[in-house]
Amino acid sequence: MGGLKVANTTAQAYAEKSPVVIISGAPGIGERFKNPLLHHKVKDFDTQYRVFKQLTVASTVLDDPQTAFQEIDRVIATALRYKRPVYIELPRDMVDLPGHLNYQPLLSPENSDANALKEALNEAVTTINAARQPVILAGIEIHRFGLQEELVQLVEKTNIPIAATLLGKSVLSELHPCYIGLYEGAMGREEVRQYVESSDCLILLGAFMSDINLGIFTAQLDQGRSINITSEKASIQFHNYEGIRLQDFVRGLLDANLRPRPLDLPPRGYVPLSDFPASDRKITIARLFARLNSFIDENTIVIADTGDALFASSDLIVRGRTEYIASAYYASLGFAVPASLGAQLANPNRRPLVLVGDGAFQMTGLELSTTARYRLNPIVVVINNQGYGTERPMQDGKFNDLLNWNYSKLPDLLGTGIGFKVTNEVELEEALLASRTNSESFCILDVCIDSWDTSEALKRLTRSLGAKIRG
Amino acid sequence: MGGLKVANTTAQAYAEKSPVVIISGAPGIGERFKNPLLHHKVKDFDTQYRVFKQLTVASTVLDDPQTAFQEIDRVIATALRYKRPVYIELPRDMVDLPGHLNYQPLLSPENSDANALKEALNEAVTTINAARQPVILAGIEIHRFGLQEELVQLVEKTNIPIAATLLGKSVLSELHPCYIGLYEGAMGREEVRQYVESSDCLILLGAFMSDINLGIFTAQLDQGRSINITSEKASIQFHNYEGIRLQDFVRGLLDANLRPRPLDLPPRGYVPLSDFPASDRKITIARLFARLNSFIDENTIVIADTGDALFASSDLIVRGRTEYIASAYYASLGFAVPASLGAQLANPNRRPLVLVGDGAFQMTGLELSTTARYRLNPIVVVINNQGYGTERPMQDGKFNDLLNWNYSKLPDLLGTGIGFKVTNEVELEEALLASRTNSESFCILDVCIDSWDTSEALKRLTRSLGAKIRG
Repeated sequence: MGGLKVANTTAQAYAEKSPVVIISGAPGIGERFKNPLLHHKVKDFDTQYRVFKQLTVASTVLDDPQTAFQEIDRVIATALRYKRPVYIELPRDMVDLPGHLNYQPLLSPENSDANALKEALNEAVTTINAARQPVILAGIEIHRFGLQEELVQLVEKTNIPIAATLLGKSVLSELHPCYIGLYEGAMGREEVRQYVESSDCLILLGAFMSDINLGIFTAQLDQGRSINITSEKASIQFHNYEGIRLQDFVRGLLDANLRPRPLDLPPRGYVPLSDFPASDRKITIARLFARLNSFIDENTIVIADTGDALFASSDLIVRGRTEYIASAYYASLGFAVPASLGAQLANPNRRPLVLVGDGAFQMTGLELSTTARYRLNPIVVVINNQGYGTERPMQDGKFNDLLNWNYSKLPDLLGTGIGFKVTNEVELEEALLASRTNSESFCILDVCIDSWDTSEALKRLTRSLGAKIRG
Repeated sequence: MGGLKVANTTAQAYAEKSPVVIISGAPGIGERFKNPLLHHKVKDFDTQYRVFKQLTVASTVLDDPQTAFQEIDRVIATALRYKRPVYIELPRDMVDLPGHLNYQPLLSPENSDANALKEALNEAVTTINAARQPVILAGIEIHRFGLQEELVQLVEKTNIPIAATLLGKSVLSELHPCYIGLYEGAMGREEVRQYVESSDCLILLGAFMSDINLGIFTAQLDQGRSINITSEKASIQFHNYEGIRLQDFVRGLLDANLRPRPLDLPPRGYVPLSDFPASDRKITIARLFARLNSFIDENTIVIADTGDALFASSDLIVRGRTEYIASAYYASLGFAVPASLGAQLANPNRRPLVLVGDGAFQMTGLELSTTARYRLNPIVVVINNQGYGTERPMQDGKFNDLLNWNYSKLPDLLGTGIGFKVTNEVELEEALLASRTNSESFCILDVCIDSWDTSEALKRLTRSLGAKIRG
């Protein structure tokens, strides 16, 4: 009990397919008779379990030693199969009880239906080989199911151009010669949109068709010209296949007789600045991200919070694989600083570049306390537009305003870290270079931009969202 | 959607009977066909509704203009009846639709069963009048149902001594001549415990029998000698009455023929210091609270977070009614700073004294940003024992440690407020007096105590809890 504090983050893991295992202690089964009022209890002893049932793909209460091991196996196998969170509740009087003696570990990994897989692959190969301009659109499940290497091989074997969804950004290096950019409907770059939407064979691999991935449903994707495979469904044009696993399909494509073709990419509409002559001009979102695009390198993992941090960062060119992390579907504010903890603990060789608006930072930014405790060293860029800047263009009012913190003073509070206040381009340059040098602790940049300054991507999105709110 | 961030606080409102109305926007009904992936969505469009169904006493989705007004009435009436949270979800395409034209407001306040009430009151009056040593034990529902004035009149009319539960602390002024103190089983003061447990007629009014209220079930209350009335049940000795409302019973007792008796109180085992000679001795929990006991006055509202802030503050003598607020049942860490916002916005004439451990403060203390934005002026005492001090005596390890913030530097981050670092008694004295003088902004005191220094109440509690963990 007491686990409800992670309800929202569990919901996010469900929505975005992260296989999180939540383990919660609970009062002993022997304490539950007569329904006493134990602290942290809400309605009944199973209230928390019932809540997490709604937010996970499998859940269990280990109230029977005879079945406990099987239940743990079942729940974890489901997390691995669907890449969604699961919930295990452990009553405290069950901790020391012996489990079933003749317990057999659950093996049986689920397989694809061999006939369905064969037919679907044949049809896909025929369709792709006959296509004039096939395009792969790669989604986040390529990362979740560990298929990045297979994807690269597939692309390099065939020279089929590849785009990514926003949630799937960086499932392959964005410097790869076959990569054409992010596809996000009207929210994304026009040249990518045109190329993808004019394809006569769109191959969607592990891509969620969510509102933000689709530029708030401004995407124009023709199902009659699509091959669409995720962990949950498989369709070619208007017919569906049952029992096909994403990983079997991707590996099958890689082994199949797909014809290589000459590399024929759309013109790149966007080239990052190699040179950034800093001036004492007030810093803008556009110039900030132009500079960051040359600042990030192969050791950087970019973590973007929701808001313009997400939209503006969609234009960054990420070098490595899965080195761009954002809550691009669930879109819960306050994601980035906590996420940087997990990302750097998982891979201590990367230095996180955290991009976070001031609104989101005020929700969870003090998790930098844990960052400091574990001596991690993210560079945190607070995009300080004095409030909920993403909301202003849609509907503005006092509810969008925030107290303007002195973010660069945060190291004084925590007793470690280095802070920089950045108002113009020269100060940005100095702060970035000093942050690169000072890698012993976190660095935080308070980048003060105008309240109404937004990225091009956000401008496109808010035009679309604003129309929806008014309509 | 996006409302899951308040799941835990809603659960607390349910557990502790706060009538909170949660109103959540949601995607339009017209947008839900074909189940598109809109951001913030978890499993289905009703996932959030299903979660809040578990955490509220009534809930509704306003998806039909014909029934919307009735549904709003039903849900709010239920909140008022049970003093529990309710949930109203408003799809965004329903906002501008006209409701039912011939709508009749719901009136019908529920009444007690007149015969049952009469019989119960008769029996209670006979029992109380025949008793040698009756005692009232008042709980939080006296506040929730607005019965404080009736309670005082009842006590003053009869001279029956009165104790309070921890959650109900300050339902009447703790300076009232008939008040004998908090009853909390083995956790509380011995003289109160003995007096209550030796009563031949215990009158429980609106009291939850929760584990913390009962000193982790160390209380020895004899049902055969009890009259126990709450909003949910009514029993006299071992028989129950149905259909009796708490407010009707309390008002009935007040009007009934209860005999006045001479005031006969147990000796007060505890007298607050009127004088506090400060020295340069390191500050301790005991001396901190001894000093706070003379610092608080009739303008103070004490708000205690969970942990030793709660237990130590149980000994404070609170002057006014409902001027002590704590999460004494649900016990969720991080309650106090956010609660001080609500308390002071509700009553701007009181100055909150916020008592919060460093562990709890690191969870939600930055809500002082909102405090500053609304120019509120709580005095925040961070009881800094460098970690989760309540847990250490039960089971210690690195998981109880925290980064030691420079809490007194927080005003530099927020750009307002006054901070004090307090290590000895002289510094405490100076900081308290300066805080009293500086009422234009919040003040924060970083009171540095030893990691293992705990209050007497917590020592008693952890002995009991520790035994439970080991057993």
